[in-house]
Amino acid sequence: MSIKLTGSMWHQLFQQHAGSAMSLQGKIRQMLVSAILDGQLPVGIPLPSSRELSVQLAVARNTVVLAYQQLVDEGYLVSRERSGYFINADILAGGQKKQIPGPETQASGGPDWERRFTFRPSLQRNIVKRDNWQDYPYPFIYGQYDPVLFPTASWRESCLKALSVLDIHEWAQDMILRDDESLVQQIRSRVLPRRGVWASADEIVITVGAQQALYLLADLLMGSDTPVGIENPGYPDARNIFGSRTRHLLPLPVDHDGLLPDNHLLKQCDYVYLTPGHQCPTTVTMPLNRRQALLQKAEESDFILIEDDYESESRFQGDLTPTLKSLDRHHRVIYVGSLSKNLAPGLRIGYIVGPAPLIAELRGVRRLMLRHPSAYIQRAFSLFLSLGHYDAHQRRLSAAYRERAKVLGDALARYLPDLHPVPISGGASCWLRGPDWLDVETLCRRAEEKGVLIEPGNVFFMQDTMQHNHFRLGFSSIPIEKIEPGIRLLAEAMHELRPSGIP
Amino acid sequence: MSIKLTGSMWHQLFQQHAGSAMSLQGKIRQMLVSAILDGQLPVGIPLPSSRELSVQLAVARNTVVLAYQQLVDEGYLVSRERSGYFINADILAGGQKKQIPGPETQASGGPDWERRFTFRPSLQRNIVKRDNWQDYPYPFIYGQYDPVLFPTASWRESCLKALSVLDIHEWAQDMILRDDESLVQQIRSRVLPRRGVWASADEIVITVGAQQALYLLADLLMGSDTPVGIENPGYPDARNIFGSRTRHLLPLPVDHDGLLPDNHLLKQCDYVYLTPGHQCPTTVTMPLNRRQALLQKAEESDFILIEDDYESESRFQGDLTPTLKSLDRHHRVIYVGSLSKNLAPGLRIGYIVGPAPLIAELRGVRRLMLRHPSAYIQRAFSLFLSLGHYDAHQRRLSAAYRERAKVLGDALARYLPDLHPVPISGGASCWLRGPDWLDVETLCRRAEEKGVLIEPGNVFFMQDTMQHNHFRLGFSSIPIEKIEPGIRLLAEAMHELRPSGIP
Repeated sequence: MSIKLTGSMWHQLFQQHAGSAMSLQGKIRQMLVSAILDGQLPVGIPLPSSRELSVQLAVARNTVVLAYQQLVDEGYLVSRERSGYFINADILAGGQKKQIPGPETQASGGPDWERRFTFRPSLQRNIVKRDNWQDYPYPFIYGQYDPVLFPTASWRESCLKALSVLDIHEWAQDMILRDDESLVQQIRSRVLPRRGVWASADEIVITVGAQQALYLLADLLMGSDTPVGIENPGYPDARNIFGSRTRHLLPLPVDHDGLLPDNHLLKQCDYVYLTPGHQCPTTVTMPLNRRQALLQKAEESDFILIEDDYESESRFQGDLTPTLKSLDRHHRVIYVGSLSKNLAPGLRIGYIVGPAPLIAELRGVRRLMLRHPSAYIQRAFSLFLSLGHYDAHQRRLSAAYRERAKVLGDALARYLPDLHPVPISGGASCWLRGPDWLDVETLCRRAEEKGVLIEPGNVFFMQDTMQHNHFRLGFSSIPIEKIEPGIRLLAEAMHELRPSGIP
Repeated sequence: MSIKLTGSMWHQLFQQHAGSAMSLQGKIRQMLVSAILDGQLPVGIPLPSSRELSVQLAVARNTVVLAYQQLVDEGYLVSRERSGYFINADILAGGQKKQIPGPETQASGGPDWERRFTFRPSLQRNIVKRDNWQDYPYPFIYGQYDPVLFPTASWRESCLKALSVLDIHEWAQDMILRDDESLVQQIRSRVLPRRGVWASADEIVITVGAQQALYLLADLLMGSDTPVGIENPGYPDARNIFGSRTRHLLPLPVDHDGLLPDNHLLKQCDYVYLTPGHQCPTTVTMPLNRRQALLQKAEESDFILIEDDYESESRFQGDLTPTLKSLDRHHRVIYVGSLSKNLAPGLRIGYIVGPAPLIAELRGVRRLMLRHPSAYIQRAFSLFLSLGHYDAHQRRLSAAYRERAKVLGDALARYLPDLHPVPISGGASCWLRGPDWLDVETLCRRAEEKGVLIEPGNVFFMQDTMQHNHFRLGFSSIPIEKIEPGIRLLAEAMHELRPSGIP
C-alpha cells in the first residue's frame, strides 16, 4: 500500500502487538519493524510526527521519540532535517523481492518420502500430553511445571548475571567439544555429592536434557543386535530410543522393590536401563541389597547398568538409598541426570556421568549431533546452582509435593478405596492398578469430560505384555486445592463405568 | 573444620569468587553457599555479625545484611533471637555424607569400552580450532564471534523480555514435539522471504544449530548403503555426519562456480549436500543457470538436494542469487539455515525447511533425540528477530566484513602476490591455493610461532583426494587493524619455508 496510514490503522497495527509482554516502547518498535519489513508502510512519505503518533496510540510522546531514535540507530529509519522520519529504503534491498507463491510452487506430488524414511518415530507408542493441559481444571499429569512453584526472581537473576559482558564473552563462542567449566564444577561439587557420586570433570558431559543422554548412549553403544534390558513396565521414551537402534530389547519385570536381580535374562544383556530411585512408572525404590546384587551380576555377566536418576532428590522422608553409581566399584554404571526437569522441562539441560574413555567418545558423538547444548543456558544454570537457588528450589518443591501427596493419598482412600495405589514415597506421581474390568482408555475419556486429566498406563508396558487397568496420577502441576475434588470426579467417572452386577 | 574462620580466611574465601561477574551481594551469597555445602563452616557456631563481616570483606554492611537475609529465605541460614545467624543444619541432610573416594572407587580396569563403541567420532578428521584462539594476536579463524560486533544491549533486551512471567509460562513447560510458535512465525515472515522462500508453519522445524539439522536428516533418511553426494572440497562436519550413517559417500568436485551439474555421479545419488550460496570452503557462489540445471537433474534422477545456506545474508554487493529452495518447483530441496551462527555460535539455534510430511517425521526424530531446543532460547531469538535487532545485526556484520575483506585482499596482493586467493564476494573467509611445494601444516605451525592462526585446507578434502597447499583465512574474529600486520607475518613464514632455488 502506498498511502499514509490513518490514525485508526495505526491503532490497529499497534493492537496486533498488544499481547506480547513488552514495554510500550518495545511494542511500538515491533509494530514499526513489522510494518516496514512487510511493506505496509510507504517508503517515500514521512512517518507521523512523534506528537501525532503518541496521540493516536495514546502513549507518552517521549516513548515514541525513543522508539524512533532506536530505529534510526538500527538503520530502519532515517531522520531528515525539518521533515521528520522516513523509512530507510536500503534496508529492504539485498533481500528477494516478495512474491505471492505461484501455482507452480503449490505443485503437489514430489518425492515419495515414506519410502525414504529409515524408521518412523512418529509411529512409536508414546506418552501423550495435551498441549492445552493447562486449560483443564484437574490436570493429574506428570513432568510439567507449576507456575506457582517456579522461582521466577532467582532464575531471572541467574540469567541476568549470565548476560554480563564478561560471561557473554565466554559463552558466545562455538565451544565445539567443550562444556561450560563452571557448570561442570557445580554438578561435581553441588549436585552429585548429594547422591554419593564423586566425579572428575572428564567423567561428566552436559546434554540437552536427560533424553539426549539416552540417545547419545544408544547411538554410541547399541547396534542393531545389541541386547538391551529395560524395565517392564518402564519409561516409554527409553524404550523408543533404544528400540530405534536395536531390535533386541529384553523386557525385565519389576515388583514392589523394582527390577529383580535374579532374572535369568540379565545374563543375556549388554546393557540394562533402570530407574532405581523411583522406578518409572511404579515409583518404587530399589532397596540396597538388591542394588548390590545387581552390581555383582553386572560384573559377573559383563553388562553395563544405565542408571536414570530422573527424580534424584525428591524423597519425602528417611535417608536416600545410595545410588547405584555411588556403589559402583568396577565402572559398570553409567549415571544419567537432569537439571531442568524439576525447574522447567522447556530449558532442556541434563548430564551423563561415566568412565572417562566413555565420556570422551560421547563428546565426539555429541559434537557430531549438535556440537554442545546452548552455552548461555549452561552458564545460567551454573549461576543458578552456585547462588544456591537450585537447592532452595528443590527443597520448596519437595515440601509442596509432600503436602500434595498427603492430600492425594487421603482422597484416594476416601473416594476410590477399591483401587490399589502404590504408596507415595517421593517424586511427583502415583501409580495405580484398577479393578480387572477397567479399561483405562475409556476411564481417561470419561474423566476428561469432567475436566480431569489422568495418564493411562498401557504405554508403559511392552506391546505384548500390555495391561489395561493401570494408570498414573501426576501431581507436579495440579494446585493442591484441586486434588480432592479432582479425585472425587475421577471416582464418579469410575462408578459410571462399573459394569452392573459388580459391587 | 570446626573452628571459627579468621578475618583473613573470610577474605580468602571471598577472593575465590572475585572473578565472577556478579554483584557484591551475589558474591557473598555464592561464597557462603559454597562454604556451607562444602562443609567449610562450623554448624553450631554463629556466623560473624553483619558488621564484623562487612569490615573483613570491606563492603557496605547493608550488603552483608541483604545477603544473610536472602540465605535465610532460601533456608541456608537460620536467624536466632539475639545470637545471630547460624547454618541451618537440615540443609545438608538428605544428601549422602561426604566421603573421600577410597582406593576401591579408584579401582582401574572395568569394561572394555573400545570393544563396545559402534563408531568412533573422535577419530574422524575435523576442523581443529584452538580453545585459546583469543590469546593469539592474529586469529584468521572462521566461525567464531567478535566481541566488538556482538549486540550486547539488544540481546540482553530480548532475553529480559523472554523472562516476563507471561513468557516464562509459555516456554517453561515440556513442549515435546512443538516449537515456539512466535519463533517459527518470525522465521517465516522475516528470515525466509529474504531468501525467496515462503513456507507454512508445518514446513519448518527448529534445531539445536544447523549441525543438528544435518544429523536429523542423516538419522531419518540415510541407511548404511544410501548413496550421498557431497562437495569435494566441502564441509567436514557434513562429511562426518553423513559418513557416520552411510558407507556410500560420493565426492563431487567443485569449480569456480561450485558443484558441476553435469557430473555423471549425480545420477547415482539419493541425496546431494551442497552450499550454493558460498561454497564451503571455496566461498564461490553458484550461478542461476547451474542451479536450474541441478534442480532439473534432481527431478530426472529422483535425488534430493540438501541446501545448506549457512552464510545466507552476507553478500557484499549485487543482488543475492535466488536460493535453490526458492526455485524448487517439485519439493526436491531441503533447506537448512542457522540463526545463531552470525550472532553467537554458542547459542545453537538453526532450522530446516522442507515438505510437511518430511518435517513431521523429523520432529519425531528430534523428539526422540532431545525433545526440543531450549524453549527459552527459542523465545529470546523470536524477540530478537521481532524487534528488528537481528536484521540490524546482520547489516552491521556485513558492513564490518566488507571492510575487513578489502583490507585482507589488499594485504594479500601486497605481501603474498604469488598466492591464488578466491576473490572474496561475501561471507567471512578467504580460500587460497599456495605454491605446489607448500605443505600447509608446516606453514600453520610456523605462522603460529608468530602469533598467526590460519586454517589448513587438507581437512576439507576427502582423504584420498587430499591436497596439501590450500588454506583458509577467516576474518569474522580478527580486528581489522590486525589483518595487514598478520598477513605480513604470514608472508614471512611462507618465505622462510620456500625451498632454496625457487624464486
